[in-house]
Amino acid sequence: MAPPRALLFDVFGTVVDWRSGIARAAAPFLARHGIAADPHGFADAWRARYDPAMAVIRSGARPFTRLDVLHRENLLAVLAAHGRDAASLPQAEIDDLAQAWHRLDPWPDSVAGLTRLKARHIIAPLSNGNVALLLNMAKRAGLPWDAILGAEVAQAYKPQPEAYLRTAEILGLPPGACMMVAAHNGDLAAARAVGLQTAFVARPTEYGPSQASDLGPTGPWDVVAQDFHDLADRLERD
Amino acid sequence: MAPPRALLFDVFGTVVDWRSGIARAAAPFLARHGIAADPHGFADAWRARYDPAMAVIRSGARPFTRLDVLHRENLLAVLAAHGRDAASLPQAEIDDLAQAWHRLDPWPDSVAGLTRLKARHIIAPLSNGNVALLLNMAKRAGLPWDAILGAEVAQAYKPQPEAYLRTAEILGLPPGACMMVAAHNGDLAAARAVGLQTAFVARPTEYGPSQASDLGPTGPWDVVAQDFHDLADRLERD
Repeated sequence: MAPPRALLFDVFGTVVDWRSGIARAAAPFLARHGIAADPHGFADAWRARYDPAMAVIRSGARPFTRLDVLHRENLLAVLAAHGRDAASLPQAEIDDLAQAWHRLDPWPDSVAGLTRLKARHIIAPLSNGNVALLLNMAKRAGLPWDAILGAEVAQAYKPQPEAYLRTAEILGLPPGACMMVAAHNGDLAAARAVGLQTAFVARPTEYGPSQASDLGPTGPWDVVAQDFHDLADRLERD
Repeated sequence: MAPPRALLFDVFGTVVDWRSGIARAAAPFLARHGIAADPHGFADAWRARYDPAMAVIRSGARPFTRLDVLHRENLLAVLAAHGRDAASLPQAEIDDLAQAWHRLDPWPDSVAGLTRLKARHIIAPLSNGNVALLLNMAKRAGLPWDAILGAEVAQAYKPQPEAYLRTAEILGLPPGACMMVAAHNGDLAAARAVGLQTAFVARPTEYGPSQASDLGPTGPWDVVAQDFHDLADRLERD
């Protein structure tokens, strides 16, 4: 198989540590407003509403809506589940917390690994995050993307086939010249089903110390790497 | 007026020298196939079909079609105008020449100027070029964009208002937090009409030594700069 021209990255969990970042942003908010919730549990509860919100859009029941909007709606729902009506809280603080997804830190190997990979490949996110979210994240964290792609540009949420196929088409590449890089087996299975190459990078603490899924590869992925340095090593060998 | 958060750049003529690059790519092709045409004149003839091709799409008579496709169609038309049926020429060579727009050189100040501007602003193309074209160009030339935006992402060709407004919306910014940077007064007029800030950078040889238009600003632009270094100087002063 020819080396991939473009490496397309899942972002939440694969490139950045969303759980720690959301817990860090939520902690002072929860304390300030007397909401009795563990910040990591709050992050988990917020994230648990992510896929169901996109499922409504994937089904066609709701037009494509960017993730910033879904994140804010889901935040209000989590606050309500903790007995707090968001209308009673300062809207500017809600807005700021809703955008905490723009301010997540990369895993320790992400920036240096991406910088290496960029020398020989096009590198871009293929994330369900919207362009502004991914751009602000990259600017703050120093993620050296060549372009910001993903669900908003493709107007389809992963794992819909269109999310992968339209991204390859926008790049002017056949699907097989693109490699999906993700810490999630489900993402790779969907990418492989429509002809992309696949690389699994384990992020065994994405969901915290008791993570039970995606601890290792569960499919016939083209590359399995420990981190982005290892991914660069393996691709340079090909 | 607050300093712009995002600087959005016209590309053909403003960031890169399309006329020299197209002439350079066309010259060996024309010689090889015995087509009697001056390469710069050939570049001008090809470029002259650019705006009319987009006008059909702006009018709604044709669905949005990316610029790579229009460039190839226009190349066939220019060859036909020179008496050559493209069917008689090697298709791989036609394809390669059609993509010469991916391989244009920046003006001497572009890369260093953009690198300075990137430290304080989001920088992105807002070009009628498609994503693959702009990405391949950036990768080859070292243009340090934060994101690749423009007509294909907005699904509208400049100077349609939607090209500017959707780009600002995708960035999560009000139009007034964006500044359009262009060597073309018409582009700036359209951007200003929908609320963007504007910067004119003269590129007096874009159309060759006898260029007659866009030699200076013709509107009340917020900034008028000699080149991208001068633009950075002026924005740092604000």
